[in-house]
Amino acid sequence: MFPDTLVHDSKSKILLAVLDGLGDIPGPGGPETPLEAAHTPHLDRLAREGTSGLFTPVAPGITPGSGPGHLALFGYDPATYQVGRGVLSALGIDFRLEPGDVAARFNFCSLDPDGNISDRRAGRLPTETNRRLVEQLRERVKPPSGVSLYWETETEHRGVLVLRGRELCGNLRDTDPQQTGRPALPVTPLDDEARATSSIVQSVLDQAHWTLKGEHPANGLLIRGFATLPRWPNFRERFGMKACAVAKYPMYRGVARLVGMTVARRYDALSEAPALLAEAWASHDFFFLHFKDPDKAGEDGDFERKKKAIASFDLVVPDLLALRPDVFVVTGDHSTPVAMRQHSWHPVPVLLHAPATVRPDQVERFGERPAQQGGLGQRLMYELMALMMAHAGRLAKFGA
Amino acid sequence: MFPDTLVHDSKSKILLAVLDGLGDIPGPGGPETPLEAAHTPHLDRLAREGTSGLFTPVAPGITPGSGPGHLALFGYDPATYQVGRGVLSALGIDFRLEPGDVAARFNFCSLDPDGNISDRRAGRLPTETNRRLVEQLRERVKPPSGVSLYWETETEHRGVLVLRGRELCGNLRDTDPQQTGRPALPVTPLDDEARATSSIVQSVLDQAHWTLKGEHPANGLLIRGFATLPRWPNFRERFGMKACAVAKYPMYRGVARLVGMTVARRYDALSEAPALLAEAWASHDFFFLHFKDPDKAGEDGDFERKKKAIASFDLVVPDLLALRPDVFVVTGDHSTPVAMRQHSWHPVPVLLHAPATVRPDQVERFGERPAQQGGLGQRLMYELMALMMAHAGRLAKFGA
Repeated sequence: MFPDTLVHDSKSKILLAVLDGLGDIPGPGGPETPLEAAHTPHLDRLAREGTSGLFTPVAPGITPGSGPGHLALFGYDPATYQVGRGVLSALGIDFRLEPGDVAARFNFCSLDPDGNISDRRAGRLPTETNRRLVEQLRERVKPPSGVSLYWETETEHRGVLVLRGRELCGNLRDTDPQQTGRPALPVTPLDDEARATSSIVQSVLDQAHWTLKGEHPANGLLIRGFATLPRWPNFRERFGMKACAVAKYPMYRGVARLVGMTVARRYDALSEAPALLAEAWASHDFFFLHFKDPDKAGEDGDFERKKKAIASFDLVVPDLLALRPDVFVVTGDHSTPVAMRQHSWHPVPVLLHAPATVRPDQVERFGERPAQQGGLGQRLMYELMALMMAHAGRLAKFGA
Repeated sequence: MFPDTLVHDSKSKILLAVLDGLGDIPGPGGPETPLEAAHTPHLDRLAREGTSGLFTPVAPGITPGSGPGHLALFGYDPATYQVGRGVLSALGIDFRLEPGDVAARFNFCSLDPDGNISDRRAGRLPTETNRRLVEQLRERVKPPSGVSLYWETETEHRGVLVLRGRELCGNLRDTDPQQTGRPALPVTPLDDEARATSSIVQSVLDQAHWTLKGEHPANGLLIRGFATLPRWPNFRERFGMKACAVAKYPMYRGVARLVGMTVARRYDALSEAPALLAEAWASHDFFFLHFKDPDKAGEDGDFERKKKAIASFDLVVPDLLALRPDVFVVTGDHSTPVAMRQHSWHPVPVLLHAPATVRPDQVERFGERPAQQGGLGQRLMYELMALMMAHAGRLAKFGA
């Protein structure tokens, strides 16, 4: 993005507020998106004083998951910084991954008497049963020498297995054949480096199957998405800023931790977030505030609830401004259109407020259509970091 | 950018007028930028007839120096074509660098009786003293065999040293420790290839220190920013056009020379520039006209003067149009906001006038905010070259 040598120190503070799934398309019957329809007098004022744009999380037409959506916001091009499913699953349950850990998703499954898979999800096991079985696996599966095993329940039939030890390698093929009527695949290394880890994982799975032998319907395990916690340059090294994340949900706390941010205590109501930011204010430079509700309402297809979630964020804006950030950005990690009930590729409106240095545009409100006319133009989301840093006086001149 | 094979010949003429530091943000107390506030009837008419856009000199958030800003205008992506400090300093004093030359900045400094630096700038020496000392260095420092030495005064304590010879290499560490109370660092090669040059430069510096021994306060030299003139594809090879630069100040004449442009005589008043262009018109295809005043006013924080400088450029526009360029572009190399008194990262308005081929937009005036809505969109500055060439009929169809 830019050479490290341009990064220079400053006392300035940057506040990045992320409304999860913010972007949308017009709702059923109406010409407006939830953001355009929401009552947001504070955000509208910031849009008038600041500058707006439409930013694409990954690339045109690409719908991001939560991991890539947030990595882009943190200045890590998600096309370059890819992270495996197992790692994201571990982050999603608040597991504290360490460098070198290998993580994978597992499903409890049902095996017939011949050992063939009869149900890949063991009848969508109740989460409580999952917990009981995970307890048994913890007790009875002996970790191979030099390796620690962490069995964790996710929900229903889903769980996460983490291996911690020296020189483990995550380049392993899934054991889930994605079909019933055949046995699970053996653990197979995808390169030479992964041979030893492959044997370790196979012995773990063999013990797990022995442990689950008498269970019904969950008498087997399928495992996929093996991944190692990547060793990426951390946020502070790359951008010269100590960062603090204020987020309620594990996935976002996890992605923040992945790039080396400090993670503050969980908040319960959004109104508690400004106080958590205030506590960290003096000791950090960059603040990431995550607010999940617009995304949940989008996934539920609930226009009114998404609109209200956005309006409820607007109510805390004065408390956020009271912290006096030099640069205040409000945006989303991706779009979750109500009409689609899922993440989408549509670019996300960005609002940048930085009174000392901003070039205002003609945008009068915060919304998808106004942002199309904004001074920031249409860009890739990972480019936002350099813009925030520039407005915060944290990037030196390039060349003489 | 585009394959060389697309370049084809034409009789068409392109005129690129660069108002240095043109871009701005609204001035103190007003909603308008200097460009928006300036009386520019001719430029406004061209904006109406032509098409506008906002172009980012290097990358979003990156503030360019004059070198990278101009390389982008000349179609050289400044992220790829990087040039060292010593070379830019040499260009800035109108020194005619040749391929293979190694150039570096030096400061006269003060050394205490133990040889430690007591003042890195020798009390900001008067330029006249600098000239006298440089004269002594020219006389008394013997060039090592096969090498020519060029000692040049810049201003105050600053100067430029150029070494010319065979197989010199500029990968040398600065001798300036950036601190007082310690001696200058020895010249040190940063790779094997630079070993021989390192010894040569050390012997030159040893002689220089001997020469300056009795002086006060400038009895030492610190040297930094060693760089070799890069061997880049030249402008004519890349774009198939003979280019002529009309510029008043050394830095811009130098950067034009760096890519192989012919450099016309210096003009004194801007009103002389059209005649200089007219002289070169028949024998060249591409014309770069540089006007420094808006940048100087911006760096001085003088809104009125910047506005007037821009208006004074507007007055010569009829004389420039009288040359009948097929493509006439007016833009800047970067922004120099009055409120910031320095270069900034803000994108620069571009106006492209090409009556035969332009798709007009809804822009009615030349200004930052109108340009946000312009038909050229928001792009990287180095992409402008292909657009100018296309409108000049100088790029063939890509593929059948």
